[in-house]
Amino acid sequence: MIARTPQDFAKSGIDVKLHTRAAAIRPEQKMVEIADGESLAFDYLVVATGARPRLTGVTGEDLEGIFCLRNLTDALRIKSYIDARRAGRAVVVGAGLVSLEMCEAFRTLGLETTVVYRRDLPMHRLGEDFAEQILRELETHGVTFMGGTHVEGFEPTPAGEIIVHTRNRSLQTDLVLIGIGVVPEVALASEAGLTLGPTGAIAVNDHMQTNVPFVYAAGDCCECYHRISHRPVHAPLGDIANKQGRIAGANIGGQDLSFPGIVGSICFKVFDLEVASTGLTEDEAREVGLKPVSATIQGRSKAHSYPGSRDLRVRLVADTENGRLLGAQAVGGDGAVSRINALATGLTGGITLEELAYLDLAYAPPFSGAWDPIHIAAQQLMK
Amino acid sequence: MIARTPQDFAKSGIDVKLHTRAAAIRPEQKMVEIADGESLAFDYLVVATGARPRLTGVTGEDLEGIFCLRNLTDALRIKSYIDARRAGRAVVVGAGLVSLEMCEAFRTLGLETTVVYRRDLPMHRLGEDFAEQILRELETHGVTFMGGTHVEGFEPTPAGEIIVHTRNRSLQTDLVLIGIGVVPEVALASEAGLTLGPTGAIAVNDHMQTNVPFVYAAGDCCECYHRISHRPVHAPLGDIANKQGRIAGANIGGQDLSFPGIVGSICFKVFDLEVASTGLTEDEAREVGLKPVSATIQGRSKAHSYPGSRDLRVRLVADTENGRLLGAQAVGGDGAVSRINALATGLTGGITLEELAYLDLAYAPPFSGAWDPIHIAAQQLMK
Repeated sequence: MIARTPQDFAKSGIDVKLHTRAAAIRPEQKMVEIADGESLAFDYLVVATGARPRLTGVTGEDLEGIFCLRNLTDALRIKSYIDARRAGRAVVVGAGLVSLEMCEAFRTLGLETTVVYRRDLPMHRLGEDFAEQILRELETHGVTFMGGTHVEGFEPTPAGEIIVHTRNRSLQTDLVLIGIGVVPEVALASEAGLTLGPTGAIAVNDHMQTNVPFVYAAGDCCECYHRISHRPVHAPLGDIANKQGRIAGANIGGQDLSFPGIVGSICFKVFDLEVASTGLTEDEAREVGLKPVSATIQGRSKAHSYPGSRDLRVRLVADTENGRLLGAQAVGGDGAVSRINALATGLTGGITLEELAYLDLAYAPPFSGAWDPIHIAAQQLMK
Repeated sequence: MIARTPQDFAKSGIDVKLHTRAAAIRPEQKMVEIADGESLAFDYLVVATGARPRLTGVTGEDLEGIFCLRNLTDALRIKSYIDARRAGRAVVVGAGLVSLEMCEAFRTLGLETTVVYRRDLPMHRLGEDFAEQILRELETHGVTFMGGTHVEGFEPTPAGEIIVHTRNRSLQTDLVLIGIGVVPEVALASEAGLTLGPTGAIAVNDHMQTNVPFVYAAGDCCECYHRISHRPVHAPLGDIANKQGRIAGANIGGQDLSFPGIVGSICFKVFDLEVASTGLTEDEAREVGLKPVSATIQGRSKAHSYPGSRDLRVRLVADTENGRLLGAQAVGGDGAVSRINALATGLTGGITLEELAYLDLAYAPPFSGAWDPIHIAAQQLMK
């Protein structure tokens, strides 16, 4: 059963207190204070306080018409606002996953859309070449990208519009979406004496236990172990939160399950482009003290002769010391996610370039050439 | 450079003799006889004689209008025949990959298409449930499937039609495609004393050497090592032939490359269905002495709520003795090949169900749910 309402939970003997905010966690008393002296006793506690949108901190950020997107309610509020105001223009602050996905949503609704971003290119992490391809995709679909600048303040107009002041110039718009990432919600945990890790999120072991063994944490409020960099990271993604929650629950329920950590797989769709990445980029590998090397190839998503075959660029990053894969990034019309998921699975098992170069992938012209971009990239990198 | 013509080869100093058939290989003299006493000397020889279509052996099989499909020339001949005869009906004998792909081709050209197959269901290897789904896909697209029967003879009519006599009844048609597999072309190799393996194809080591070290073999004429069953198999597929050819060439050229073998990945598209498989089926695992267990789940190709999400069924087969994946099969509207390629990569590294259950796959709603069918199937099988 998937519980969605308090009634669903009640059927499983779970009491749900809505509109109730925890005021403090008292691990030593095994209590959570919920209001004016009222408290709940526990044997085990799961801290799943999530993350909150990061804000710019500039003046006017609380104006009506300025939104963050964290959940379905936010999405519905944005949509209602667009309808009610007959909004025709949107400014998106930031150029990460959520921001780029929202560009597509706004353009689909017919809004003039402008991105304001502090760096020169969107998704710069993936490297200049891939970032430029993403930029072209945005521009092809009518998104204006203002890179290398940042927001200095928001100002209302008498007509209910918003003026966005950036370092370079000012923009008039009907609504603003702020999508510059999230920060883990750790105030309660921190005040309760739970240890935070180097990322600022709650530190947990592979059983999802905090430093207090009967207090667990799961989801966007806590860290997870990155299997390739061997460092704790804050990776606030829905699939990871689901896994961590399941591990925490299973262990509290008496099982003995370990969360093996992540390899850092992400993907998104922006207009007609698939973008996906796993493991480390070459820069990230270098930052953690590895000696990486990379190769980027331009392949095709299907056999060259097959209708609908599209360009697919794949970059592999490998460790010069042992030939093992460290990461991969792919951008293409289609097939990027498929390749990255195969490579993520390989990363998990410590696959080498030599193995990738002759990997037995399923081949048929509607799905790849006889030499897949994975093979070609691995062979290129071995040269 | 990809050499396509004798002139292309000549530029690389390679002499191409067209319309010349090798009459005998003489390893002890390092010679290939090509015609009336003429012969070519070699230091190294590559046997790449390929495979030929398996035939039914019944009377009338050499009638005009009865085709096999092995190469592009065959395809063009079939297409010309359809055009010239204004063919409106096709009978396909067999129900493997090529036969099913040809059903789609014939239906696309508007031909009434009937499959005659000795077993009750197409692609029975994948299990009754998946085979039934493939059957429904054929029938939905107007293909008539006559299972559990076989062809007993072909007979011409005065009007140039063909009568196909099956065990049950006779069919009148304009053309017949025989697609019941291929047999390795090993006559020359066998007469030269090269060792054949248990499959009847040429036995090779991981350097693609035959039992005569300076004679190599590659492609559909030779065996390859199956990394999961640990047995030599005959897997006449284009991607494998490419890899073997490259390994043979590299070794002759002075490198020291090993072909690591295959895990048995295949895929095909039949109308709107993707079908893919890697490793062993449960039956195959049992046949090689393993103790397999399997679970089949019905998932979705994308997040449930995402437009265009389609049913995707995934079966995992694992070894009860060590929890390792042994194989996987998937059938769905889309996403089957993508999952099988991730699983094939995992198989290559000996991945366990435990690792699959929490595998860090790239997640975004256009590409999967937060729990991918791979996770769900692995968790199901661990229960």
